[in-house]
Amino acid sequence: MDVRQMLKEVQEGKLSIEEAEGRLKDLPYEDLGYAKLDHHRSLRSGFGETVFCQGKPDEYLVKIYRSLAEQDGRVLGTRASWEQYEMVKAAVPQAVYDPISRILKVEIEQIKTGLVAVCTGGTADIPVAEEAAQTAEFFGCNVERIYDVGVAGIHRLLSQRERIVKANCVVAVAGMEGALGTVIGGLVENPVIAVPTSVGYGASFHGLSALLTMINSCANGISVVNIDNGYGAGYIATQINRLAVR
Amino acid sequence: MDVRQMLKEVQEGKLSIEEAEGRLKDLPYEDLGYAKLDHHRSLRSGFGETVFCQGKPDEYLVKIYRSLAEQDGRVLGTRASWEQYEMVKAAVPQAVYDPISRILKVEIEQIKTGLVAVCTGGTADIPVAEEAAQTAEFFGCNVERIYDVGVAGIHRLLSQRERIVKANCVVAVAGMEGALGTVIGGLVENPVIAVPTSVGYGASFHGLSALLTMINSCANGISVVNIDNGYGAGYIATQINRLAVR
Amino acid sequence: MDVRQMLKEVQEGKLSIEEAEGRLKDLPYEDLGYAKLDHHRSLRSGFGETVFCQGKPDEYLVKIYRSLAEQDGRVLGTRASWEQYEMVKAAVPQAVYDPISRILKVEIEQIKTGLVAVCTGGTADIPVAEEAAQTAEFFGCNVERIYDVGVAGIHRLLSQRERIVKANCVVAVAGMEGALGTVIGGLVENPVIAVPTSVGYGASFHGLSALLTMINSCANGISVVNIDNGYGAGYIATQINRLAVR
Amino acid sequence: MDVRQMLKEVQEGKLSIEEAEGRLKDLPYEDLGYAKLDHHRSLRSGFGETVFCQGKPDEYLVKIYRSLAEQDGRVLGTRASWEQYEMVKAAVPQAVYDPISRILKVEIEQIKTGLVAVCTGGTADIPVAEEAAQTAEFFGCNVERIYDVGVAGIHRLLSQRERIVKANCVVAVAGMEGALGTVIGGLVENPVIAVPTSVGYGASFHGLSALLTMINSCANGISVVNIDNGYGAGYIATQINRLAVR
Amino acid sequence: MDVRQMLKEVQEGKLSIEEAEGRLKDLPYEDLGYAKLDHHRSLRSGFGETVFCQGKPDEYLVKIYRSLAEQDGRVLGTRASWEQYEMVKAAVPQAVYDPISRILKVEIEQIKTGLVAVCTGGTADIPVAEEAAQTAEFFGCNVERIYDVGVAGIHRLLSQRERIVKANCVVAVAGMEGALGTVIGGLVENPVIAVPTSVGYGASFHGLSALLTMINSCANGISVVNIDNGYGAGYIATQINRLAVR
Amino acid sequence: MDVRQMLKEVQEGKLSIEEAEGRLKDLPYEDLGYAKLDHHRSLRSGFGETVFCQGKPDEYLVKIYRSLAEQDGRVLGTRASWEQYEMVKAAVPQAVYDPISRILKVEIEQIKTGLVAVCTGGTADIPVAEEAAQTAEFFGCNVERIYDVGVAGIHRLLSQRERIVKANCVVAVAGMEGALGTVIGGLVENPVIAVPTSVGYGASFHGLSALLTMINSCANGISVVNIDNGYGAGYIATQINRLAVR
Amino acid sequence: MDVRQMLKEVQEGKLSIEEAEGRLKDLPYEDLGYAKLDHHRSLRSGFGETVFCQGKPDEYLVKIYRSLAEQDGRVLGTRASWEQYEMVKAAVPQAVYDPISRILKVEIEQIKTGLVAVCTGGTADIPVAEEAAQTAEFFGCNVERIYDVGVAGIHRLLSQRERIVKANCVVAVAGMEGALGTVIGGLVENPVIAVPTSVGYGASFHGLSALLTMINSCANGISVVNIDNGYGAGYIATQINRLAVR
Amino acid sequence: MDVRQMLKEVQEGKLSIEEAEGRLKDLPYEDLGYAKLDHHRSLRSGFGETVFCQGKPDEYLVKIYRSLAEQDGRVLGTRASWEQYEMVKAAVPQAVYDPISRILKVEIEQIKTGLVAVCTGGTADIPVAEEAAQTAEFFGCNVERIYDVGVAGIHRLLSQRERIVKANCVVAVAGMEGALGTVIGGLVENPVIAVPTSVGYGASFHGLSALLTMINSCANGISVVNIDNGYGAGYIATQINRLAVR
Repeated sequence: MDVRQMLKEVQEGKLSIEEAEGRLKDLPYEDLGYAKLDHHRSLRSGFGETVFCQGKPDEYLVKIYRSLAEQDGRVLGTRASWEQYEMVKAAVPQAVYDPISRILKVEIEQIKTGLVAVCTGGTADIPVAEEAAQTAEFFGCNVERIYDVGVAGIHRLLSQRERIVKANCVVAVAGMEGALGTVIGGLVENPVIAVPTSVGYGASFHGLSALLTMINSCANGISVVNIDNGYGAGYIATQINRLAVR
Repeated sequence: MDVRQMLKEVQEGKLSIEEAEGRLKDLPYEDLGYAKLDHHRSLRSGFGETVFCQGKPDEYLVKIYRSLAEQDGRVLGTRASWEQYEMVKAAVPQAVYDPISRILKVEIEQIKTGLVAVCTGGTADIPVAEEAAQTAEFFGCNVERIYDVGVAGIHRLLSQRERIVKANCVVAVAGMEGALGTVIGGLVENPVIAVPTSVGYGASFHGLSALLTMINSCANGISVVNIDNGYGAGYIATQINRLAVR
Repeated sequence: MDVRQMLKEVQEGKLSIEEAEGRLKDLPYEDLGYAKLDHHRSLRSGFGETVFCQGKPDEYLVKIYRSLAEQDGRVLGTRASWEQYEMVKAAVPQAVYDPISRILKVEIEQIKTGLVAVCTGGTADIPVAEEAAQTAEFFGCNVERIYDVGVAGIHRLLSQRERIVKANCVVAVAGMEGALGTVIGGLVENPVIAVPTSVGYGASFHGLSALLTMINSCANGISVVNIDNGYGAGYIATQINRLAVR
Repeated sequence: MDVRQMLKEVQEGKLSIEEAEGRLKDLPYEDLGYAKLDHHRSLRSGFGETVFCQGKPDEYLVKIYRSLAEQDGRVLGTRASWEQYEMVKAAVPQAVYDPISRILKVEIEQIKTGLVAVCTGGTADIPVAEEAAQTAEFFGCNVERIYDVGVAGIHRLLSQRERIVKANCVVAVAGMEGALGTVIGGLVENPVIAVPTSVGYGASFHGLSALLTMINSCANGISVVNIDNGYGAGYIATQINRLAVR
Repeated sequence: MDVRQMLKEVQEGKLSIEEAEGRLKDLPYEDLGYAKLDHHRSLRSGFGETVFCQGKPDEYLVKIYRSLAEQDGRVLGTRASWEQYEMVKAAVPQAVYDPISRILKVEIEQIKTGLVAVCTGGTADIPVAEEAAQTAEFFGCNVERIYDVGVAGIHRLLSQRERIVKANCVVAVAGMEGALGTVIGGLVENPVIAVPTSVGYGASFHGLSALLTMINSCANGISVVNIDNGYGAGYIATQINRLAVR
Repeated sequence: MDVRQMLKEVQEGKLSIEEAEGRLKDLPYEDLGYAKLDHHRSLRSGFGETVFCQGKPDEYLVKIYRSLAEQDGRVLGTRASWEQYEMVKAAVPQAVYDPISRILKVEIEQIKTGLVAVCTGGTADIPVAEEAAQTAEFFGCNVERIYDVGVAGIHRLLSQRERIVKANCVVAVAGMEGALGTVIGGLVENPVIAVPTSVGYGASFHGLSALLTMINSCANGISVVNIDNGYGAGYIATQINRLAVR
Repeated sequence: MDVRQMLKEVQEGKLSIEEAEGRLKDLPYEDLGYAKLDHHRSLRSGFGETVFCQGKPDEYLVKIYRSLAEQDGRVLGTRASWEQYEMVKAAVPQAVYDPISRILKVEIEQIKTGLVAVCTGGTADIPVAEEAAQTAEFFGCNVERIYDVGVAGIHRLLSQRERIVKANCVVAVAGMEGALGTVIGGLVENPVIAVPTSVGYGASFHGLSALLTMINSCANGISVVNIDNGYGAGYIATQINRLAVR
Repeated sequence: MDVRQMLKEVQEGKLSIEEAEGRLKDLPYEDLGYAKLDHHRSLRSGFGETVFCQGKPDEYLVKIYRSLAEQDGRVLGTRASWEQYEMVKAAVPQAVYDPISRILKVEIEQIKTGLVAVCTGGTADIPVAEEAAQTAEFFGCNVERIYDVGVAGIHRLLSQRERIVKANCVVAVAGMEGALGTVIGGLVENPVIAVPTSVGYGASFHGLSALLTMINSCANGISVVNIDNGYGAGYIATQINRLAVR
């Protein structure tokens, strides 16, 4: 909405006061009563609204998927269960589901650009990493997966260095002591998004230990998202990748 | 060091085994005994080594500044006191100091490119914000400062929206309840680096409250650095800005 | 009990010493053995005793509902399960249950006065918000519900501003980073009761993050109740609303 | 600013597009560069802007007091030191200072209305209580002070019950185990604002223990502000008192 | 074992060196392999060994009960499930079980002496209180139960004051904000053992809030045991009661 | 105050209604304005009011000591500084001070009875232990001091066993890992009051580690007071000792 | 890989540049796609790769066991369930499982050397202790088991002293207050590895209390591994035992 | 003390019962009243008693140094200040002091054996590392110092690998994110003792972050001591080194 243009139309009598007043309040979201869907979001930010499936009442979830699929043509949902997938699929047949990342999506074909690298410390971190990787792919990035390169066996990581340094952004996913981000941060030139995972036991406190490690990293160029928040990391990696390729 | 080239020279007899063996171990840092300076860092990553001044013994600090100033021509130091400034200035006369950000630097003229925005919630967050802003400027970014726009008076922030959305990266600096990053994250398209500050009292626990707020942000596109770590945020903003303008 | 009046009766011989002594100890509650019900509470404070259903042994729960329904005519219970509802309904047929708020109540018709607004950051916060809203309604307030207006999309909240400012008290319910209270606090003139919810994941620590955010709010006029304590917020909102309309 | 009126003037040609556009952006605060003062705040909310003195640079502090004193005629500042008082007094002679509450203010005569009660558990909680009491008085409330009535000697509190129940709002200030709020909450009909203080030692963790006690109170009608935040409690008490007396 | 007597026997040749050496090492416990039962404990301390049933493998549990029942004639077990009760009962028919306190015991008739009072804040604290009360009874104390006298309705507690002050030791059991101990501590002359319970929700953190409240109590004469540790409190109350009645 | 007697006097006309009403409210404390001294406390509980000196304003402190010394003849104050001692001594010449325990007292001769043992893990715990020991002595107990018997050299503790087992109550004072209480608890028959101290470094977190150790003790008969709260432990030990010797 | 030898072969033309380049990158692990197995690990460190079974997808687990069993002849897996055992056994028949320690292994006969002692505080700590003991045995140590010797009954521990002091390394496994390590540390000359367990309740916080106790131990010679990390302790004990017997 | 021999002497009448009884209690430490010095400790464990200087009263400290220097010939003290050094030196002239490690010692010449490596992440960790290194040297180890090899520049660490792998034990000292231990653990065969340091800022929480990182390390062979506890690490490294070289 261009305020100047609108005011001009008011001045020229092309627009009534009431209409102008309305437009100033009129925000582009659809109110489903229980939720306010923001279809124009992808216009504004280049990203559609993402559905956090976990805990959503069944009826709402299906309606949200149908509404977004119809209007935007594509939907990205995270933390979906198999049951939710089957329910949504009945209403939106083109929906696809990946049980590792728990992503439930409706996708349109697109050309992928740039490069994001997603690394994990161990194999148990892969579900979070896949949430990040598939998010970045959904939003149009090429993704290089480099898994199980934890720093306790530093040669595994170093042997993959060449693949990592090419990326516009590296997502470093690790639980336990969470040191992966720091070592990668010392190897690459571009930003590293560190994702602590809740993988670990004992005093890992469901990811708190890895979170503190990453926040306190002595390497430059590392910023951190919430524990297990693969989606958030994939989103930021996409933002950075877009800046790099535009 | 090009391994292929070096191996070729060994094959052709141009390089002795001993020399090759040495080179494979020879890493490009200068060992001052008490510290290992990495002059080639700026070649590798585009960023020179930064000096964390706080707590450095006087004698070491001066030597490090002299060595970096001579070899790299410029030095960025953070968390410097006025006393450290005077001591360094005696040895490196071109050093300049800003008591707000506590940055002590030797700079060379350069053309700035791109745009980074640095916002604060309150006036007490300005020292951390200046550390971020001056770091980004040192590394070649244009910086837009937008201070005292905390979300308790949301109109102050909204009136600055146009200045914020233009930036390739926004640094959001806030203490107390730390909600600035979330609101900015909902307004802009590009990445937001959130910096919790230790500003606050009572149950702010020296920045822990703001850190948790930012890590748990419900907005997309926000990643977080350590409490009061303006330098880290300025560094990442520079990385992102470089990708955007290259 | 009027001490002066009682003493006068003793002086005048209308009341024996033993009776007077007894009255001084006699407090107006009914002792069921396992619990002490306070029927006169509504006389003293204008609020009947509320039943916290969760974890109450079945037999006790039914007895408590029956006793309160008979003597006070109405009962408010929170955190009730569907099973508890069915059990209570068998004994107290006029009991009604709302599975969203988990409120199980016996209500009498009444005229509602004043206005309380209840806002949520997201849709997942609605159960807690409904506990607050229905508590305020039970105690005689008009309630305006304004849901899913989280600060990551600040335009959604701002478009509802007019509805919010009219309330005598605003209840702000939010999980994750919990910034809703601060932004509302900056928009309204009347008190805001902030309710952190356990909605979130990763480092939200079951609502601790939102609690800290709200306690550290940089806005004026915000006070905080326990995590997920919708009932408590609805109660306080009622107290304030009553003062405003009396 | 009345949007409807303004649009009408644009339509009627009484207002240029440029001016209208400007007004829509023009927010009523004064930008001192380092801080944005909100003189119109008292119009909007009935409360002037309050100055948090602690840590403010000297020069800024004096300018802020002078600006607010000139335009609003009165200023409330909290957490001021004696040195800040002397500095401000030189520029704003009518400023007065109370070393117990650390409030530094410029006041205008006014009639006080309603009643707020401020209670403390011990004598060490008095500075925080005075910050609350004097804030409420500055904003026009009558205040009843009831100090040193901690629950370890419950008779002290009960003997003051009559004074407490008359207030429209009770501020309960306590450190150590912080149980004062709960007992008062069970005695009164009106809202209780609980203020945990950092008074205590050992495992009181600078007020965290009292904060948790108050947040977990089993009494109804209690909401909590930040540790030592007497100002915040006084502010909310004023909001409630105003609703009660208007 | 009397060292002096034993040495005398060695001197007199009544005891061989080997036997003496053995006795010095010989400690009066029975080694079941997986556990070392201390039958003589009741001789030494006046208390038999107590069985913490929760999590004990079935086979071990039955053997331990049988061994203690045979040798000591009585057994006290805590945190037992109904299943464990049935299993033990099959082997030790005189075992009795109370599902509220979860105590599974074999008792011998005895005369009870002295007086211990056990108070709770709410009805949900009763299981922990019963563990304390029945432990004290098992070890020979008279117990006065005073339940549901939480400080949010202080009159309920005060009306029971006379019953409480007579006890040699008061056990104060409370969850949520845990203030019961402090108020009782101010009413009685004898020691108060405070037991925080995990009753509560939100920021009660499974009893941590109540624990901190009690540890920070501003009343004299209060010491604290672990969260939900009714057994421990009953044990200490018995120790104190015994000193008082001996 | 005997309620029955008073009511009788009212009935008989010996006491006016007004006087009776007054007495029912009249509680036996002296109101100094800033503090409410409870001179009759020693009548009720057998313990005079104790002064927590730390942080008390100078003028108040002197007045409190003078008032208590005059009316009760003796005063116990804790956490006093040398400066406070000199100030109080000028007004109350019979005051004596011990810089180790930081106890500042006015004592009257008395016969000591019973036995309390006070043990420490290391020499650094002695100040807290002396606060406990001198408190118990002030209130009339014989005290056996057994210092520097930490469990890392278990023979030191075992060699003192005979002295420890004789006490009616053992106070176990320890910092660092705080295991002293558990080992003593396994050696004695009577109650152990454990006092965690803030002695330690690194992850001792100012006594939190020792507090948790003691609260989680696997020995029976241990209850815990606040970190460094020697006074509290001495007080409880006195309560128990009195029960044992009465 | 001997770099010198390889370079010599390049110089002599026996090795092509490409092959040499490859070897410098070629690290001796097998990439299964989802995991990188390090068969040569036992060559480098004397320990084969250990499988952390918990949470491994079924298909991966079986493949990993098969691959390691074929190439290394033996496999050590920890935290295995009975279901995992049955699945692995079907593919690798020589696999054996111990439900106490939850170790699932394929072993080859070997001579055991040296001595490691594994002690526990209680019987509930035995599963963790067995993980430690069987790990040490798997890697070739003799192990002395000394269970249920918690410090609350110090005579039980002291009677076992002779068995403990002979070990080259002592593993001390304890939950609750975790004091076992400190007492053992004071008894022996050789290193103690302390393992906190999650055994306990109330404020033991799933082993945090025991962890803090052990980290703060006032005894010398104690270092700590993660909560319940019996495997880690057994591994380190083996490293130390090997140094002692080589 | 040989119990068998002693008993024999009693039997043979060479030793009186009283003497024997006495010996059984007689433990080989010297009681200075305020502290119990254990001169025979070095006989038992091979390590003399170490003095923790910080906070020791001046008079005691000098006496302890004198006593140990006279009887043992050598003394190791940690956390000493310059003032303590000067005071001790006056009484024990052979005492030497290192202001970096803050070690104050009296040493006798000895041959050093074996090898311990001490590594640090940064230069700020050197004081703690020196405490470890000098402790190990005092107790007879050769020490290799490898400083400033933090994992953010992994090439610095890898270039030192050969020096590290030779050691019988590696001490890894690091603050901030504390990842050094994990990477070293993956490089070496022998045990790694990790020492978290309080170096860091923001959310490092005085070393807690590094402590959690190290406790959660995904590498094998790492155990952890308290924050900044260089002495403890040096002690354990010595124990391990002695086992390796004996």
